Amino acid sequence: MYTTDTICAVSTAPGVGGVAVIRVSGKDTIDIVARIFRPFNPNKSLLTQKAYTLSYGTIHKGDEQIDDVLISLFRAPHSFTGENTIEITCHGSVYIQQQIMQLLIENGSRTAHPGEFTQRAFLNGKMDLSQAEAVADLIASTSAATHRLALSQMRGGFSKELGKLRLELLNFVSLMELELDFSEEEVEFADRSALLTLADDIKTIIRRLADSFSVGNAVKNGVPVAIIGETNAGKSTLLNALLNEEKAIVSDIHGTTRDVIEDTITLQGVSFRFIDTAGIRETEDTIESIGIQRSFSKMEQASIVLWMIDSSSETDALIALGENILNRIDPNRLILVFNKADLLSADELREKAEALTDALGNNLPYLAISAKNGLHIAQLEQKLVEASHIPEIGQNDVIVTNMRHYEALVNALQAINRVIDGLTNGISGDFVSQDIRECMFYLGEITGDISPDDVLGNIFKNFCIGK
Amino acid sequence: MYTTDTICAVSTAPGVGGVAVIRVSGKDTIDIVARIFRPFNPNKSLLTQKAYTLSYGTIHKGDEQIDDVLISLFRAPHSFTGENTIEITCHGSVYIQQQIMQLLIENGSRTAHPGEFTQRAFLNGKMDLSQAEAVADLIASTSAATHRLALSQMRGGFSKELGKLRLELLNFVSLMELELDFSEEEVEFADRSALLTLADDIKTIIRRLADSFSVGNAVKNGVPVAIIGETNAGKSTLLNALLNEEKAIVSDIHGTTRDVIEDTITLQGVSFRFIDTAGIRETEDTIESIGIQRSFSKMEQASIVLWMIDSSSETDALIALGENILNRIDPNRLILVFNKADLLSADELREKAEALTDALGNNLPYLAISAKNGLHIAQLEQKLVEASHIPEIGQNDVIVTNMRHYEALVNALQAINRVIDGLTNGISGDFVSQDIRECMFYLGEITGDISPDDVLGNIFKNFCIGK
Repeated sequence: MYTTDTICAVSTAPGVGGVAVIRVSGKDTIDIVARIFRPFNPNKSLLTQKAYTLSYGTIHKGDEQIDDVLISLFRAPHSFTGENTIEITCHGSVYIQQQIMQLLIENGSRTAHPGEFTQRAFLNGKMDLSQAEAVADLIASTSAATHRLALSQMRGGFSKELGKLRLELLNFVSLMELELDFSEEEVEFADRSALLTLADDIKTIIRRLADSFSVGNAVKNGVPVAIIGETNAGKSTLLNALLNEEKAIVSDIHGTTRDVIEDTITLQGVSFRFIDTAGIRETEDTIESIGIQRSFSKMEQASIVLWMIDSSSETDALIALGENILNRIDPNRLILVFNKADLLSADELREKAEALTDALGNNLPYLAISAKNGLHIAQLEQKLVEASHIPEIGQNDVIVTNMRHYEALVNALQAINRVIDGLTNGISGDFVSQDIRECMFYLGEITGDISPDDVLGNIFKNFCIGK
Repeated sequence: MYTTDTICAVSTAPGVGGVAVIRVSGKDTIDIVARIFRPFNPNKSLLTQKAYTLSYGTIHKGDEQIDDVLISLFRAPHSFTGENTIEITCHGSVYIQQQIMQLLIENGSRTAHPGEFTQRAFLNGKMDLSQAEAVADLIASTSAATHRLALSQMRGGFSKELGKLRLELLNFVSLMELELDFSEEEVEFADRSALLTLADDIKTIIRRLADSFSVGNAVKNGVPVAIIGETNAGKSTLLNALLNEEKAIVSDIHGTTRDVIEDTITLQGVSFRFIDTAGIRETEDTIESIGIQRSFSKMEQASIVLWMIDSSSETDALIALGENILNRIDPNRLILVFNKADLLSADELREKAEALTDALGNNLPYLAISAKNGLHIAQLEQKLVEASHIPEIGQNDVIVTNMRHYEALVNALQAINRVIDGLTNGISGDFVSQDIRECMFYLGEITGDISPDDVLGNIFKNFCIGK
């Protein structure tokens, strides 16, 4: 799969900027770039230039000048990919980017596939597979938490944890297999109860990693929040009000744009994914229709259910809906929000809220807001962050954020469970040994110690070009 | 106006990319970056690092790691701005870009205004004003021609031409003023007829430069082409067909996006700006309505008028419209295009075309195409390129592309005309001398030798951030 041909790509964001960076990597990088680059100082040929230096000069297409550029030179193995690498910093016109790319291709390189630079870093042993995947996560990170998790994974925090596990499993399987070699002599090298303790310890670690995925996934993809309530209860006004809270924080940094993902809002560093449950209405007589069923099932999948109540609604209708909701979900996941609170006096509101919570019998906490006037939005934000149960994530915490890793961990967990069963039930050592090896296999998939080509292809095709 | 405080900005295109470049420039650049950067090799402090080298390390916010970055170091005066400058190449996540910008600001720099880096390069004498303006043009260049003109201007081709002119004018004015100093003695140092020849030569050069703006402006903003014809004559189908010709050339370069400006299409390196003239219809009985008037006036401003004819239209109606068109525009600017040519046989089409061109009496050339089927689109493209009269532009041609420069040249031309009048009519030397100085003043405005602050402010505010 690995080729040493020379690849090139625009590595900066697409479009026009002050400058753009074109990355070239592979065996012939320096020769290829030297053919189209003329340094302003003619004594400084790229071919003899030292690594980790900058050269200033002009890109030429025959006799025509294309642009003044800066060349950053890296020599194998001391580069991101582990190969000879050059980064060309040119003016950020799309035309210039195209021209330089075309020249690089005409002179013997080819356009890189998405993620191919990082893939080469992996194949050259500069990082393992989970670290390579973290590079993509780092680039995609949009909040403090996703950024921290990606950086820790890129640094190898997760890999180190897996490495330790694999070492213990290797030790374990060696003991088992030594015993097998001598099986005819009925020697028992390994004390089965000590082995069982070891397997239990390994299981605990794998389970902790696998369990961390629920936090990791919520951090990466957002905590799912279902909002119940009629459209006129003010759902979209609320989302806008929350979005404004977020924007107030980020908008003072000039020169950046944000990819707004519909209805995903980051509050105090925690991302929330708001789920549409348009089908549930307070005045609905029956909850048997398919639309309503679907909405309730979305609500059940959400970590937090935000029940938006128009403060002027009838209490009886609210009680009926509340009972239906509480038949489906844990009251701890429910937040009652009385919107349009400014339509009622404080006393009227309290009376209505107490009538509702008394009837539902759960002493449900409630919040009175006005999405339109921005009243108590900050309190709601605080409440959402608390209800998200996302722990403060430290720099060195190992938390699984990747579905592929999670699946491998679940497979490893099943294997180690079979090992424990086998040891408990006195199953023959070669079967147990087989299960230990399987557990190691799954853990190895995560770091890429075991990685079929098609798995690799799948991973890197989701990268952006130029990385 | 000039301050030496330290400025910073994201210099690459906004959004997410594999990498992004943050530029920092000013007196305290190295100190500020050294506070947040920890090199992986602890012996390589930025403070003692040589210019034109790369350092690899981590950006820190207190104890928290933000990203692994590459630092490109430049020391004054050997940098783009002429100041100490650092370029930080980080991972291209928007979050990371924001965090690093925030850290730079917290540590004593401020966000740069648009174009402020280039403005500093100008104020530090690294380039004159017309060269600085060419940097923005270079970044905005979208075709071979705009790119070539911007690069030549950035290289100082235009500045050199203006420098020579100013030197001649200085020589001129010295002769005049020497004469004034001795005026009481009625000495005439300068031979008036020789002076007149000199003024004429200068005028010729200024006029050539001013005249080049019509080409320069067409290159930069597109050759204006008015399309006449009913909507169902196939105007938008034609534009799409032409756009496809263009896309076929550029689409094989991966990883770039194009800012599509509505109805501006580049064919063989020449940009055409297609102008909507929806108001002109073949079947219209009167051309007196305001909409029609407006359309005709747009047509008059266009360099090329493309008359799209539905081949199935009645010949009489076509003749009536054709007469109206030819009352307004030079027949040399008209291109007749029979669209939907596949609806008629070749003979029928030739007959109809000849009936029309005979009636209009201009032996107008015509073209038969099918926009829908792509028939003869390449021929039309060729015809448009020929009709654009854009000369082949060499690397060293001086062509004015900037409206501000053009206005200054027109002012300089008026001044030199007054000089010539004065010399011809024997006007007193001090008046003539005043006009020569005025001519020099206008030429000096172009290169920034004379540049009030508000002019500078206006120029640089149109730059992109980070350049």
